[in-house]
Amino acid sequence: MVGAVGDKKDFPSETVINLPGVEKVMPLNKPYKLASRELKDTPTIVRIGGVPIGGQGLAVIAGPCAVESEEQLLATARAVKAAGAHLLRGGAYKPRTSPYSFQGLGEEGLKLLSLARKEVGLPVITEVVDTRDVELVAQHVDALQIGSRNMQNFALLKEAGASGKPIVLKRGLSATIEEWLLAAEYILTTGNSQVVLCERGIRTFEPSARFTLDLTAVAVVKENTHLPIIVDPSHTTGNWRWVLPMAKAVVAAGADGLMIEVHPDPARALSDGAQSLHPETFDRLMGEVAPVALAVGRSLVLRDKIMPSPCFQAESLAL
Amino acid sequence: MVGAVGDKKDFPSETVINLPGVEKVMPLNKPYKLASRELKDTPTIVRIGGVPIGGQGLAVIAGPCAVESEEQLLATARAVKAAGAHLLRGGAYKPRTSPYSFQGLGEEGLKLLSLARKEVGLPVITEVVDTRDVELVAQHVDALQIGSRNMQNFALLKEAGASGKPIVLKRGLSATIEEWLLAAEYILTTGNSQVVLCERGIRTFEPSARFTLDLTAVAVVKENTHLPIIVDPSHTTGNWRWVLPMAKAVVAAGADGLMIEVHPDPARALSDGAQSLHPETFDRLMGEVAPVALAVGRSLVLRDKIMPSPCFQAESLAL
Amino acid sequence: MVGAVGDKKDFPSETVINLPGVEKVMPLNKPYKLASRELKDTPTIVRIGGVPIGGQGLAVIAGPCAVESEEQLLATARAVKAAGAHLLRGGAYKPRTSPYSFQGLGEEGLKLLSLARKEVGLPVITEVVDTRDVELVAQHVDALQIGSRNMQNFALLKEAGASGKPIVLKRGLSATIEEWLLAAEYILTTGNSQVVLCERGIRTFEPSARFTLDLTAVAVVKENTHLPIIVDPSHTTGNWRWVLPMAKAVVAAGADGLMIEVHPDPARALSDGAQSLHPETFDRLMGEVAPVALAVGRSLVLRDKIMPSPCFQAESLAL
Amino acid sequence: MVGAVGDKKDFPSETVINLPGVEKVMPLNKPYKLASRELKDTPTIVRIGGVPIGGQGLAVIAGPCAVESEEQLLATARAVKAAGAHLLRGGAYKPRTSPYSFQGLGEEGLKLLSLARKEVGLPVITEVVDTRDVELVAQHVDALQIGSRNMQNFALLKEAGASGKPIVLKRGLSATIEEWLLAAEYILTTGNSQVVLCERGIRTFEPSARFTLDLTAVAVVKENTHLPIIVDPSHTTGNWRWVLPMAKAVVAAGADGLMIEVHPDPARALSDGAQSLHPETFDRLMGEVAPVALAVGRSLVLRDKIMPSPCFQAESLAL
Repeated sequence: MVGAVGDKKDFPSETVINLPGVEKVMPLNKPYKLASRELKDTPTIVRIGGVPIGGQGLAVIAGPCAVESEEQLLATARAVKAAGAHLLRGGAYKPRTSPYSFQGLGEEGLKLLSLARKEVGLPVITEVVDTRDVELVAQHVDALQIGSRNMQNFALLKEAGASGKPIVLKRGLSATIEEWLLAAEYILTTGNSQVVLCERGIRTFEPSARFTLDLTAVAVVKENTHLPIIVDPSHTTGNWRWVLPMAKAVVAAGADGLMIEVHPDPARALSDGAQSLHPETFDRLMGEVAPVALAVGRSLVLRDKIMPSPCFQAESLAL
Repeated sequence: MVGAVGDKKDFPSETVINLPGVEKVMPLNKPYKLASRELKDTPTIVRIGGVPIGGQGLAVIAGPCAVESEEQLLATARAVKAAGAHLLRGGAYKPRTSPYSFQGLGEEGLKLLSLARKEVGLPVITEVVDTRDVELVAQHVDALQIGSRNMQNFALLKEAGASGKPIVLKRGLSATIEEWLLAAEYILTTGNSQVVLCERGIRTFEPSARFTLDLTAVAVVKENTHLPIIVDPSHTTGNWRWVLPMAKAVVAAGADGLMIEVHPDPARALSDGAQSLHPETFDRLMGEVAPVALAVGRSLVLRDKIMPSPCFQAESLAL
Repeated sequence: MVGAVGDKKDFPSETVINLPGVEKVMPLNKPYKLASRELKDTPTIVRIGGVPIGGQGLAVIAGPCAVESEEQLLATARAVKAAGAHLLRGGAYKPRTSPYSFQGLGEEGLKLLSLARKEVGLPVITEVVDTRDVELVAQHVDALQIGSRNMQNFALLKEAGASGKPIVLKRGLSATIEEWLLAAEYILTTGNSQVVLCERGIRTFEPSARFTLDLTAVAVVKENTHLPIIVDPSHTTGNWRWVLPMAKAVVAAGADGLMIEVHPDPARALSDGAQSLHPETFDRLMGEVAPVALAVGRSLVLRDKIMPSPCFQAESLAL
Repeated sequence: MVGAVGDKKDFPSETVINLPGVEKVMPLNKPYKLASRELKDTPTIVRIGGVPIGGQGLAVIAGPCAVESEEQLLATARAVKAAGAHLLRGGAYKPRTSPYSFQGLGEEGLKLLSLARKEVGLPVITEVVDTRDVELVAQHVDALQIGSRNMQNFALLKEAGASGKPIVLKRGLSATIEEWLLAAEYILTTGNSQVVLCERGIRTFEPSARFTLDLTAVAVVKENTHLPIIVDPSHTTGNWRWVLPMAKAVVAAGADGLMIEVHPDPARALSDGAQSLHPETFDRLMGEVAPVALAVGRSLVLRDKIMPSPCFQAESLAL
């Protein structure tokens, strides 16, 4: 199957249908093409440092909001690995609402992430915020994250895509699902097919949580694209107490993984302390998420296999 | 413990603290008082026709959006009962956006609900939309529903509360959680403590689903009030295909029950056909929800017991 | 011209087109029919106690949020009349978010409004919140207001419409313009054509003002319906300092009038003090609005004439 | 007066108060400091190519959404100048939701803007979307625009600020006013004080207009910052018919200027045709806006003077 993108009126349908080997020419209805299930109906499995995202196993990405020091990063990395996380996150370049907030360690943070990968053995993800930093960041980590505020920073999408690294693309805080998939399409058009979508809450009128988790997005995304989708309940809720129930809900809804903020001492975190889990709480979260994963035919033990339709039958449990 | 409501400056603290039997006088910080966990920290179990909501078991309310005919209602009632639902819903008075849409059968619908209860044996819930109808509706059903559009119809809240019937209070489509709990407070101040909160989606910019499910609200509500909370994924998503994954997410998030629209022939439903489940799909939903319930220490078999903190350990499952 | 409403597939187009006197049968595209410009293209002028709304003149409705006492109401009525207001507002039944807030004087408030009308000579508008109160309220005032929280209280819309009184229909705080016009349609289907729409802000994520003024709604409404539209900048902004600039913007945008909260002593108001204007500030507002009205071809002096297309030419002003 | 920014707890208040020449040390309450009226209470007048924005005169920026060709740009530039516009806009780098939409002419577009400036004599504004382009763009135009989708692209804010050029900072489509002023603060901290805020609509649930114009933001911004604010009713409404009434409302609300999209042949525009005005309509807009400007004490003829409090008295008009 060959997908052609561009302006429909410029497409030589008549010529193409008569080429040898062409059986059918059909239009794609969605504005996104490469991301669409119309073009590719089997789930895409993205591999970050060998860890598959989008198969039967659930991928858990954990770590601090920001890399603060070697001690803080290594302690967190060891703790989240011990609890069963598969990937390490940590911000070196932090997009902060105020210019007076901690902006991240920059290149020093990248080096610490490289170190943590070597020391602890987890693949590493970090955010990139400037086209000029993409090359440097790509040298140090296994996957690039495009943050919510940059979801429609199209220059950055193209530059990050061109790096060839897997990209975790967070949804803009007021982006529709269609706009989000079109942002993914910007990356896919660079020839890079390794895109993981990450829902992280949208902006609404409700003030109790930091953002409103749009969990239905998981079902909508699964229906419309072959790309894997994970959810970040930490940024969504902004409150560590609500991360646990939401993590279970995320898995039950059918997402392919979780991104969770963990900090060895949340009260002293330089950013996002209120929503960061203490390592012990993260361990409890992994323990509580595991049976929910099983209940929907998934597992926290990663296996590199396309997920079948939910196979876990109610009948096999003693009600 | 005695809760006093009213204007704080009129409260004779000095006098009260010196009354015999008074150990402590403390202010309640939330604007809602009777609904607050500050006043009552144990979960309230509401009983509708003998069915407990808010205990360890999960309550499933199912049925058609609108009562259309005896045949339609009885067929649905039998099917949802067979699949394991505990309560029957059905609208006799339908608040419709357009005056040209089907407005419900009115009193005839109430009589059919009475009949269904007798024939099938499920307690019955229906919406009331006018203060003048409360008495009549209360004669025919086991619980009154206050719909989303009437959440701040304070005259109706007071009249419904005064009926003494259990009330299912749906969240207004743009109500904050605090406003919702204050609406519950209007009912509680009539002396009626039998209030079940029902999240049904909020209005946001995202167009793909009918409303945006605010699932974090379950965690926020559980933290702030002793009242039980259920979720209606049918109205929220507006699309039957997304009802299944969201129902599982709702249970994993810790809600006390589900309200699901079921119709024997969704394509011909007089209202909300797109979001109604065929009875076979509802049966599948119950089968898929059951293991998720177990995974979070709940059950679809109703037991009248306060839910302990989640006791289902990951360790007991072969990972 | 005859408008037929109901299900399109039941309409005997073939028969009707052949009736004597029928030249053309055409479908109405909007879901609202009686409210649509497709049915009636000339602006409707609603008369409240003789005051026209929807003509070239701008109608200003002013008064306290709630009727608190004879003294408060008469003082306000005299002040707003002296400043040029055409109608008096004041709430007797107040829909309040909390059951512990002042709920209005009820029937006593209605009597004070009757008294103010007689003493001061301004027609009077008040909100009705319960179908059972419509008859009583209609006896005391010149127009009924349906508040934002009751915009989709369809039983109330029908009962208020049936009273034959002019209705000021506030937009629901999260109602789309189409839903709002369908709510107006509920009133119009009772045979009551005297409906004034009132924009009062919508709920969004922005926290600085109480609600977000959707001023574009004035242009959208003018394009789609013949009904007059006024705007309430007091409830919208929730802050008296912002009422002045917004009142000028409302008039420049082409609205047919203003509803403004005025209180003789805002700091001691029993409700909405922060957004109420002191009478002196209201007087200044009228003085600042007047030249803006002239600049768009309108006037604060009411004349009962259909507004022509803006006739005030820039050329006639010395730039 | 000296403003010190940074972490409050690191500030040596005791030492500073005792320095010679220091009379008082006071904290700034807003999270933004340099942008705050607490630090500077007189309005800032920004000059773009000699045109003042923020004084008594109103600045009108007009031109096509995207630069498409020399012919299109020059025709538009001549037309908007003839109608009284003060500045020319035109996009060379277009941030488009879909990768398959026209992305702008890039450097070729910049050269055409330079040419238009020389030929027609209007200062020129264009958007920059990538930190790597800032230097090049700054060589060709009089002011840089930061678009809505890049409002929190902090790397770009800093790079653009460092260019020393005046910056037009559009509000993010779901940014709060406080976040917007903090984005301005990022620019101000580079030492560049030439920032013009531009409201362009926020994202809400209402579907009729492209975005919801938040006009109250003008009043809120004026109260909290000394920076000038203009409004873009073209992007806000997404519909040329609504641009006229909204432009008048913007001026009445107290904004310092307008940004309007004009295209010689809107039906064939490569982007945003639906919201672009035909030059004749723009001419009519200028004619209708002029008297509204006078009515609020402003003028379309630019004078470089701080605007006094509205001096245009109602009494001087024959009512």
